[in-house]
Amino acid sequence: MKRLIGARGADIADVLDRAKPDEAAAIVERLPLEDAVKAFDQPGIDCAPAILSRVPRALAADLLNAMSSDRTAEVFRSLDEPARGELLSAVAPDVRATIERLLHYPASSAASIMTTEFVAVPSDWTIAQVLDHIRMVERSRETVYSVYVVDPAENTLIQAVTLRRLLSGDPDAGVLSAAPERAPVTIEPLAGREEAMRLIAKYDLLAIPLVDEQGHIQGIVTVDDVIDAMVKQQTAQVQRFGGVEALDVPYLRLGFGAMIRKRAGWLCVLFVSEMLTASAMQGFEGELERAIVLTLFIPLIMSSGGNSGSQATSLIIRALALREVTLKDWWRVALREIPTGLTLGVCLGVIGIVRITLWQRLGFYNYGPHWQLVALTVGTALVGIVTFGSLTGSMLPFALRRLGFDPASASAPFVATLVDVTGLVIYFGVAAAILHGTLL
Amino acid sequence: MKRLIGARGADIADVLDRAKPDEAAAIVERLPLEDAVKAFDQPGIDCAPAILSRVPRALAADLLNAMSSDRTAEVFRSLDEPARGELLSAVAPDVRATIERLLHYPASSAASIMTTEFVAVPSDWTIAQVLDHIRMVERSRETVYSVYVVDPAENTLIQAVTLRRLLSGDPDAGVLSAAPERAPVTIEPLAGREEAMRLIAKYDLLAIPLVDEQGHIQGIVTVDDVIDAMVKQQTAQVQRFGGVEALDVPYLRLGFGAMIRKRAGWLCVLFVSEMLTASAMQGFEGELERAIVLTLFIPLIMSSGGNSGSQATSLIIRALALREVTLKDWWRVALREIPTGLTLGVCLGVIGIVRITLWQRLGFYNYGPHWQLVALTVGTALVGIVTFGSLTGSMLPFALRRLGFDPASASAPFVATLVDVTGLVIYFGVAAAILHGTLL
Repeated sequence: MKRLIGARGADIADVLDRAKPDEAAAIVERLPLEDAVKAFDQPGIDCAPAILSRVPRALAADLLNAMSSDRTAEVFRSLDEPARGELLSAVAPDVRATIERLLHYPASSAASIMTTEFVAVPSDWTIAQVLDHIRMVERSRETVYSVYVVDPAENTLIQAVTLRRLLSGDPDAGVLSAAPERAPVTIEPLAGREEAMRLIAKYDLLAIPLVDEQGHIQGIVTVDDVIDAMVKQQTAQVQRFGGVEALDVPYLRLGFGAMIRKRAGWLCVLFVSEMLTASAMQGFEGELERAIVLTLFIPLIMSSGGNSGSQATSLIIRALALREVTLKDWWRVALREIPTGLTLGVCLGVIGIVRITLWQRLGFYNYGPHWQLVALTVGTALVGIVTFGSLTGSMLPFALRRLGFDPASASAPFVATLVDVTGLVIYFGVAAAILHGTLL
Repeated sequence: MKRLIGARGADIADVLDRAKPDEAAAIVERLPLEDAVKAFDQPGIDCAPAILSRVPRALAADLLNAMSSDRTAEVFRSLDEPARGELLSAVAPDVRATIERLLHYPASSAASIMTTEFVAVPSDWTIAQVLDHIRMVERSRETVYSVYVVDPAENTLIQAVTLRRLLSGDPDAGVLSAAPERAPVTIEPLAGREEAMRLIAKYDLLAIPLVDEQGHIQGIVTVDDVIDAMVKQQTAQVQRFGGVEALDVPYLRLGFGAMIRKRAGWLCVLFVSEMLTASAMQGFEGELERAIVLTLFIPLIMSSGGNSGSQATSLIIRALALREVTLKDWWRVALREIPTGLTLGVCLGVIGIVRITLWQRLGFYNYGPHWQLVALTVGTALVGIVTFGSLTGSMLPFALRRLGFDPASASAPFVATLVDVTGLVIYFGVAAAILHGTLL
């Protein structure tokens, strides 16, 4: 407890996040308000809603009044009724008005992580006036390094100036003398969080203003919120690619029931889809009975299709996320993936044929009198399946985006399942063509 | 061309990155030096080494002299001889010394992305003196928002103060009056880039100082470099999880040969490992001949093991990366994954049994006189395989870290391959136990 007093916000937040909710609430009750606020202002803290619904109402109100507005709104977003309504009526009227305005925006919008605590000054001020103003309001602003210059009459955004340029400018000159030549990078309040993230990353900004259609700044998104959002996004992306719903909370903190729910959904969907393989195999029952030797390579061949598909999907998911390719580039990608898949398929096919030949010649296994034809079947099927896997895997993220889904919802297991049934059909089709009149 | 003059650095960098190297070099030759430098200072630019080895030596030297030191070092890292040596001898002596110092650090270290252009002031200065100093050096520093206060005699780091606190402080007071109570967050120069990333993200820093054993600041890592490193890391992580080597360049810019190399390696390794499934199947040849019906469910059962493994691996890779779990938590994870896997396995097993029963009863397919036992075999095997998949998938990242590899090198195809052979053994083991005396 003692070591928490005066500690860094992120470290206090860590301790609170690791404690059980009741313990965390007890810690917050004994912490100086200033330290608790520091912790609650961390974008990374997860336990704030749980704590606020446990501590005395008056303390909760004090905390919420002192927190930065973006964090307060984020907390309200995860609070359930009745705690939400009760706390909302307990906070100061101006804080309540801000929260209600922020809650109005959808959770995926840039506006949902914006803060309203920024510095805006009229364009007819001098640099000295602006610096004086900053000195006065510094404590209550999330950032003062970007200062927004607005039209004195219309209150519309004209320019963004950095504190460093203000500081080295002539104090008696107008504030716009410290402005860059170009208009500031802005974003609409309803644009996605990802877009705010992308622009801040691309233009190395410390903050980006959210400007509505009338040209008024609604708030700003700061770089620390963006970094936090990026870490969360990265986790969600890897988890979804692995075929799990994004957990949203640390692995060890998620309850057993919730863990099952996050995993069972996709697992069952994939399982039911994969049942088509059983149906496909039933369709080839005759071939299977006549040529048991073919079954030996089913797992090998199917997994190769899934693996090449998973590779292609991971490449295209990121290329789309980074805007290296866009929806209209699908055919350029397809034209790359077909020769790539063919080449990779030939590599695997050759290895497969060498393996069968070696085993046969060295006497490890007897693939029957037509073993050369079996080897040829396996090799040819691999070329077809790897090509099909690469093509399907690369087209899936495009298809998802075209249908309005997030391309990143394409997971490795999803691609493998898509490729598996077709893989079987290709394998038995090739077998029928090559082994007709001998084994089949 | 015209629209590039005076454009934002990131936008110029975009154009250069999309052009062919020779065209990009021609553009740079015609751009004002200031604009070219802005573009080359972008952490996201990929084409700088290619351009610098194509433009006239004098221009290349001018560019390198004017770029920020972290970017210059990054460029030299990707230059090959003889261009590297020639350019190094062409730059100004002080720039050369800095580059040589930075190149000394390994590419994965935090120091490799540090800049030496930061503001350091002795602790006996007043705030007014510091502000005057900042005004003077502002143009040549990557950031002035964090100011490092050093011991006047020893030159060791004492404190980090922010410009916002300096600005609102008393000008005549000592610089340390604007410092926070706590010592600054620092990092060793040889610590990993990821560690710098983690600390900046956690403590919402704009920069972190790299301090050597003697307490001297070697440089700072700024938030814009960290964001860029995070985006690159995210891409590499998704790609590796998909079973590809990290591409490091945009999808459409990677040559055909390089694309094959990045994908064929893992694909061949996985293929060769997966050949064990063929060997396993050969071992069960007798069973397969007697009970062809068993082969129908092989793809279904194997993919379920792979899918549950892929889920568990993705969860643990991120939990380890975010330090939600550490190496010593492996048994806690194992104790969670076993009941989770059992529950998920029962879900799939029940669906599987229902499917077989329905098909049999509705007359879609005849699984033979012992169809109840076949259904029981499939259901029981699914429980075993999903449990084994979840456990293996969750333990794999721990095993990799224990062996000194990056846990994130565990890919979905890798896990699936690991699980496949054991999956077959479990399936045929269960079949032998349940069907002994009937089908087998």
